Amino acid sequence: MEQGGKAALGWAARDASGHLSPYSFSRRVQRDGDVTIKVLFCGICHTDLHIIKNEWGNAMYPVVPGHEVVGVVTDVGPGVTKFEAGDTVGVGYFVDSCRSCESCGAGHENYCPDVVLASNGVDGDGATTQGGFSDVVVVDQDYVVRVPRNLPLDAAAPLLCAGVTVYSPMVEYGLNAPGKRLGVVGLGGLGHMAVKFGKAFGMTVTVISSSPGKREEAIERLGADEFLAAAGTMDGIIDTVSAWHPLAALLELLKPMGQMVLVGAPSKPLELPAFAICPSGKRVAGNGVGSVGDCQAMLDFAGEHGITADVEVVGMDYVNTAIERLERNDVRYRFVVDVAGSLLGAAA
Amino acid sequence: MEQGGKAALGWAARDASGHLSPYSFSRRVQRDGDVTIKVLFCGICHTDLHIIKNEWGNAMYPVVPGHEVVGVVTDVGPGVTKFEAGDTVGVGYFVDSCRSCESCGAGHENYCPDVVLASNGVDGDGATTQGGFSDVVVVDQDYVVRVPRNLPLDAAAPLLCAGVTVYSPMVEYGLNAPGKRLGVVGLGGLGHMAVKFGKAFGMTVTVISSSPGKREEAIERLGADEFLAAAGTMDGIIDTVSAWHPLAALLELLKPMGQMVLVGAPSKPLELPAFAICPSGKRVAGNGVGSVGDCQAMLDFAGEHGITADVEVVGMDYVNTAIERLERNDVRYRFVVDVAGSLLGAAA
Repeated sequence: MEQGGKAALGWAARDASGHLSPYSFSRRVQRDGDVTIKVLFCGICHTDLHIIKNEWGNAMYPVVPGHEVVGVVTDVGPGVTKFEAGDTVGVGYFVDSCRSCESCGAGHENYCPDVVLASNGVDGDGATTQGGFSDVVVVDQDYVVRVPRNLPLDAAAPLLCAGVTVYSPMVEYGLNAPGKRLGVVGLGGLGHMAVKFGKAFGMTVTVISSSPGKREEAIERLGADEFLAAAGTMDGIIDTVSAWHPLAALLELLKPMGQMVLVGAPSKPLELPAFAICPSGKRVAGNGVGSVGDCQAMLDFAGEHGITADVEVVGMDYVNTAIERLERNDVRYRFVVDVAGSLLGAAA
Repeated sequence: MEQGGKAALGWAARDASGHLSPYSFSRRVQRDGDVTIKVLFCGICHTDLHIIKNEWGNAMYPVVPGHEVVGVVTDVGPGVTKFEAGDTVGVGYFVDSCRSCESCGAGHENYCPDVVLASNGVDGDGATTQGGFSDVVVVDQDYVVRVPRNLPLDAAAPLLCAGVTVYSPMVEYGLNAPGKRLGVVGLGGLGHMAVKFGKAFGMTVTVISSSPGKREEAIERLGADEFLAAAGTMDGIIDTVSAWHPLAALLELLKPMGQMVLVGAPSKPLELPAFAICPSGKRVAGNGVGSVGDCQAMLDFAGEHGITADVEVVGMDYVNTAIERLERNDVRYRFVVDVAGSLLGAAA
């Protein structure tokens, strides 16, 4: 969609094949509170895959995916007080919200019913949003976060979605206390971040997986304390699995009143036996990313503890292959596109 | 089981027919910390029905059911400091716990893995516990609560299980704040108590039912504010339904980050679609009764606000009929047996 602002070059999907190819468009005219950001790196999230292939039935083609953006500020509107040109910043899963509902008022704008997604979203003026697989993004300052200087920018990109999606519920549900026992189910983009945050919080972290081959990976590479958990031993479990899986066996691992958090999104309903939670007062919560405040707190914490994702950095010309590989979980643990270092205009 | 203490007369089920008839046994010898209680009234809970008919496969016949006991203290052991003869007291769903696990240490002894149920439970000495459908019970003082003087004792009995089962999670999850909106699903023994507590907390209470005929009952009789709820309007929902039912439509009624609490126990697993909770940060918790502390706090609150159950008081000779009627939900809202006023030795 032409918006009359800065010319932008990105890679977009045109149909449900999800195949990405160069796409010229324009960003919105920079508003008073807007920050213009040159994109340096952008992570590839499973959600991008769902959207470009129209698996959720809501794709508004052409779709430029990408919502794990790290970049540098190149220009700011006259009302911008938080950032200036040269700042290293991040943009995550959403770029605006209504600012007046109960969720926005409570600082949980990620749960605003009118939240504007960074890609394939609908902006306040009716325009379709285009994501970070492009050379430039224009975002209201209130939805931009600061990236700590000490973090490598490529490996920091996945923090903007994968990172905050696990960090935010860990803090919300008190799964950030030294000595507590955290279970992490699924060892992908989200799961490997949960292991790292759990260890940095001083918790005992157990990776729970049905693949025995992941034991060494979990313990040697990511620093988990244990592989497989005993019944009734976990204070909380972060369940990152996005395929259908039985919950009852996982709930069994929780202590009484233990907290499970679902951050994956299987399309088929999960089974929740009342007997698995009622006699023991256990809890199951869903979580969707985190607020802007959560995201900044997570980045600050990551900066203090030197936490980033384990990434495989690729050029934009590799993105279609990367998405195929992501689809079969062939990545340890996140692809990041070197957007600024790629020839975005090259043939697909 | 003969325990060599006070002779007791109760009504017990002998087999999976669940038919109750007079049963002579003895209580344990009163220990230092024990309170001997003459049973005045005992409520009939759905759990009693499950147990006497062996629906959970764990009945240890003969089973004397009953765990909503109100009575008067007749004797105390030398170590008892909390009660004296003549006190009006209550005994609920459990009568002991290990006192050393994490749950007991945190004052959540209802979630102790070794909790001793009041009926069909296994006591620390290996004896099978017998419930309140009998003339006398002997219980450790730490598992006995005080019943406020101003409450009618028959209508207070269901507070000991139905009352605390809904009150405890309401407090635990902040669903006790004036102005918040509470949904109550199911208008039986538990549901009608949730409506009363919700109103006493100053909340706006909506009864959610698929039976339009319950509208007048909910609003006129129980003081609910609304019948049926709009999407995204509830801070919390107490779901008391013990038959299988779809959760997704109920979760839709919650605000973002809203809390559902399951206190019924359908035997077939419920369906939990991740999409119903993840994008909105919603929560589902199970709850099993409440701690002794919760129970005392609930009784004190009930005393201050004059809250009791709506009951149909029956003699023990009517109990088999009452259980049949309970099975088809033909009671508004709780049967209570007038134990002290019944001829327990009469033929069944």
